[in-house]
Amino acid sequence: MTGKTVGVLGFPFSKGQPKGGTELAPKELRAAGIVDRIQALGNNVIDHGDVDLSGLPADSKVGVAKNSLAVGEANKKLSEDVAKYLKKGEQVLLLGGDHSLGIGSLHGHTQVQPDTVVVWVDAHADLNTPFTSDSKNMHGMPLAYVVKEMAQFLPKTPGLEWCKPSLSTKDIVYIGLRDVDPGERKFIEQLGISCFSMHEVDKFAIKDVVEKALSQVDPSGNRPIHVSFDVDAMDPIHAASTGTKVPGGLTLREAFYIAEEIAATGRLSVLDMVEVNPKLGSPEEKEVTVANTVSVTAKFYGSKRQGDVPPNYVIPRPQA
Amino acid sequence: MTGKTVGVLGFPFSKGQPKGGTELAPKELRAAGIVDRIQALGNNVIDHGDVDLSGLPADSKVGVAKNSLAVGEANKKLSEDVAKYLKKGEQVLLLGGDHSLGIGSLHGHTQVQPDTVVVWVDAHADLNTPFTSDSKNMHGMPLAYVVKEMAQFLPKTPGLEWCKPSLSTKDIVYIGLRDVDPGERKFIEQLGISCFSMHEVDKFAIKDVVEKALSQVDPSGNRPIHVSFDVDAMDPIHAASTGTKVPGGLTLREAFYIAEEIAATGRLSVLDMVEVNPKLGSPEEKEVTVANTVSVTAKFYGSKRQGDVPPNYVIPRPQA
Amino acid sequence: MTGKTVGVLGFPFSKGQPKGGTELAPKELRAAGIVDRIQALGNNVIDHGDVDLSGLPADSKVGVAKNSLAVGEANKKLSEDVAKYLKKGEQVLLLGGDHSLGIGSLHGHTQVQPDTVVVWVDAHADLNTPFTSDSKNMHGMPLAYVVKEMAQFLPKTPGLEWCKPSLSTKDIVYIGLRDVDPGERKFIEQLGISCFSMHEVDKFAIKDVVEKALSQVDPSGNRPIHVSFDVDAMDPIHAASTGTKVPGGLTLREAFYIAEEIAATGRLSVLDMVEVNPKLGSPEEKEVTVANTVSVTAKFYGSKRQGDVPPNYVIPRPQA
Ligand SMILES: [Mn+2]
Ligand SMILES: [Mn+2]
Ligand SMILES: [Mn+2]
Ligand SMILES: [Mn+2]
Ligand SMILES: [Mn+2]
Ligand SMILES: [Mn+2]
Repeated sequence: MTGKTVGVLGFPFSKGQPKGGTELAPKELRAAGIVDRIQALGNNVIDHGDVDLSGLPADSKVGVAKNSLAVGEANKKLSEDVAKYLKKGEQVLLLGGDHSLGIGSLHGHTQVQPDTVVVWVDAHADLNTPFTSDSKNMHGMPLAYVVKEMAQFLPKTPGLEWCKPSLSTKDIVYIGLRDVDPGERKFIEQLGISCFSMHEVDKFAIKDVVEKALSQVDPSGNRPIHVSFDVDAMDPIHAASTGTKVPGGLTLREAFYIAEEIAATGRLSVLDMVEVNPKLGSPEEKEVTVANTVSVTAKFYGSKRQGDVPPNYVIPRPQA
Repeated sequence: MTGKTVGVLGFPFSKGQPKGGTELAPKELRAAGIVDRIQALGNNVIDHGDVDLSGLPADSKVGVAKNSLAVGEANKKLSEDVAKYLKKGEQVLLLGGDHSLGIGSLHGHTQVQPDTVVVWVDAHADLNTPFTSDSKNMHGMPLAYVVKEMAQFLPKTPGLEWCKPSLSTKDIVYIGLRDVDPGERKFIEQLGISCFSMHEVDKFAIKDVVEKALSQVDPSGNRPIHVSFDVDAMDPIHAASTGTKVPGGLTLREAFYIAEEIAATGRLSVLDMVEVNPKLGSPEEKEVTVANTVSVTAKFYGSKRQGDVPPNYVIPRPQA
Repeated sequence: MTGKTVGVLGFPFSKGQPKGGTELAPKELRAAGIVDRIQALGNNVIDHGDVDLSGLPADSKVGVAKNSLAVGEANKKLSEDVAKYLKKGEQVLLLGGDHSLGIGSLHGHTQVQPDTVVVWVDAHADLNTPFTSDSKNMHGMPLAYVVKEMAQFLPKTPGLEWCKPSLSTKDIVYIGLRDVDPGERKFIEQLGISCFSMHEVDKFAIKDVVEKALSQVDPSGNRPIHVSFDVDAMDPIHAASTGTKVPGGLTLREAFYIAEEIAATGRLSVLDMVEVNPKLGSPEEKEVTVANTVSVTAKFYGSKRQGDVPPNYVIPRPQA
């Protein structure tokens, strides 16, 4: 029960990667009751609908990165919307869409709260440049476009000219990595980004990982928190309907724990829930993926496994 | 190898909840060899058959709680049987049936061993009153009827007049909760019931949870132990054939660990194994649920993953 | 990135147990790219092909142990091959085949490196004698034939006359046991073999298990390491295509962790990867089992979940 105002924003977009479907996720997540679930916890929830993605430019050919015109334009709009609602004092819950939305989400967030820290929960580092990426898909690159220290490694990217990097590597911490490209690994090492790969999750267990992650990125414990949660951070058994599954991921329980502990800080400011792809997997897998995503999201906004009590709940008793 | 006498009692009952099937579980568990498994560990096992549930009253309409006449009458018989075999010096293994049997099992147990402590392993708190329950199903209420501090919150319940509460909230500890109703949460907080929800299982890990649970409920470590094990405490992947599955549960390994550690105390007095529903799930899921339930039960009676040795086993050697 | 020379040796053999299929595993593992995966990590990999198992004797009747003539002869050849490549300074990666290959693999290893220690990762102890085994299958007996202290419990076994035990019980540590026969349990206790069953994995968690296991068997931390990895050590959900599945096993993540930590010692000398049976399970289960086996193997040779960087990798930058 955070008692805060949560602005929900859909981002029905899939051009950051090659598989159609992630553009349907906001609709599916809403149909599964994500808004009501968060409202019932005592939060004031405003569903702002979807970011207006009409009239996006068509990328006629592959440039330095695939669909960079569309990715750039969509994220510019997203950045403006995120900033707008944050300025109104709302927390923002962003329903992706593929993870290229990290560009606009983080850009917009840092325009309003430049001191935010980022907890990136993902199987992947999403720190590729167009040069280090084999696939050239921009859902694997969002952090490269918003981190200052990465600017020297980036080409001029059509569509992304507006995006000035606004975060430092020391503002970021990773949880859940297990499929990291060579260039990404070198960046993480050279730039000293805090990283709790699944090896560290196994080594320290999730309680210590969350504690260490938060204290490394924000020792004083008072900065706003941006969580970018790629559902492929979870094991495929819990989130099969996503585009780039990697075995050996977070359990649903570990995802819950992360979300509960972030909620307990009282400092969650923006949450990206990304990469649900309702077109992938069996019908049952889709249902499980969507349901688990909704459950994890609810934990970020105050739902507890110990049990939730609506505001002003009074225990009913026998009448005297 | 406890070398104790274990009395097995079936309770083929499903009127504590709406789904037929749990009344078939005692037969399925026996068919899967549960009696032989416990016998082979060096225990003296007596199968007393099923509690006689013939001639139960029909509940013509929903009263304050569904089927309370039948639930009440069945549990009265159960209480008497449990007390009878405990008085003979037996440990009692109770094969449910739905979890409404907690009423009779705990009532009967406390008549003979009033100092027993209760370890309630479940996804649910089963602490609802007819007023706090939405469903009015009594398998979600057993603890409310046996705990003294709850009496003030209960209506007069037809069929349950015989049941005088005999436990205190301080005698109970929960393990595995993750789906707790608002009223239940309030009761747990206000009455100060020890509770290790799945959040705490993730936080402390199962070894410390078992240690803390036992030391909180019985610091001196010398009281008899009643374990009420709802198979839905386990993750649905391990126990899909049950009526109220909740994702994010105990692993089979954690269930084994709990059982092994309880066995190691030497103080297990009554064990309820409940909520297996052979009518739910696929044939394979039924088989897995039953097999896992048998395996967990065997651990409560001395089976160890390190390996078991029958009494008087002698290593065979080459003949001289 | 160990930079070492790894000699790969297939052992297409299944006569240590009754189910045909493990003889196909070396081919399947190679087809899944196991050699390239290890090579890409910066190791020098030489695939020596399969051990020549042509002309094995047929066992006309069951003697003291099933197929002991064939098991004995095949393992004699294996021992010679393992010793040959170790003498050339190679690490040996052995692709089974059933676990009876532990006889030849350990015999050959100890001929060249008598100070090796053994980490046996398995659901089973594989320490039966023909007298303590119910099945008489030799894949459950390899350690009995190579451990000095076991000699007194063994019959003369046709085909195994050449095999002189060369290890001591104090050189061995188990990880993952959960299905241990009575005789095996007695041997483990009486001979004092270090053992981390799944109970201990749950109790201590995998980080401490690996640390304790290595320090118990090799306190000074400088001896060569032989890992014998039976894929049934992993939970059936991760390795269903194997002959003797036991629920409640190591997670894929725990298997990765063990492999990463062994790799980090820099002292892995021989690795047996055994008991993949491509004929068992559904096509999807076969694929998962093979893929997971390849992934775990790669971790033993330097692959990290933090990310791998090929030797001499240079971050590409924009052209000036
Ligand atoms: Mn990802
Ligand atoms: Mn991502
Ligand atoms: Mn339950
Ligand atoms: Mn229950
Ligand atoms: Mn095995
Ligand atoms: Mn084995």
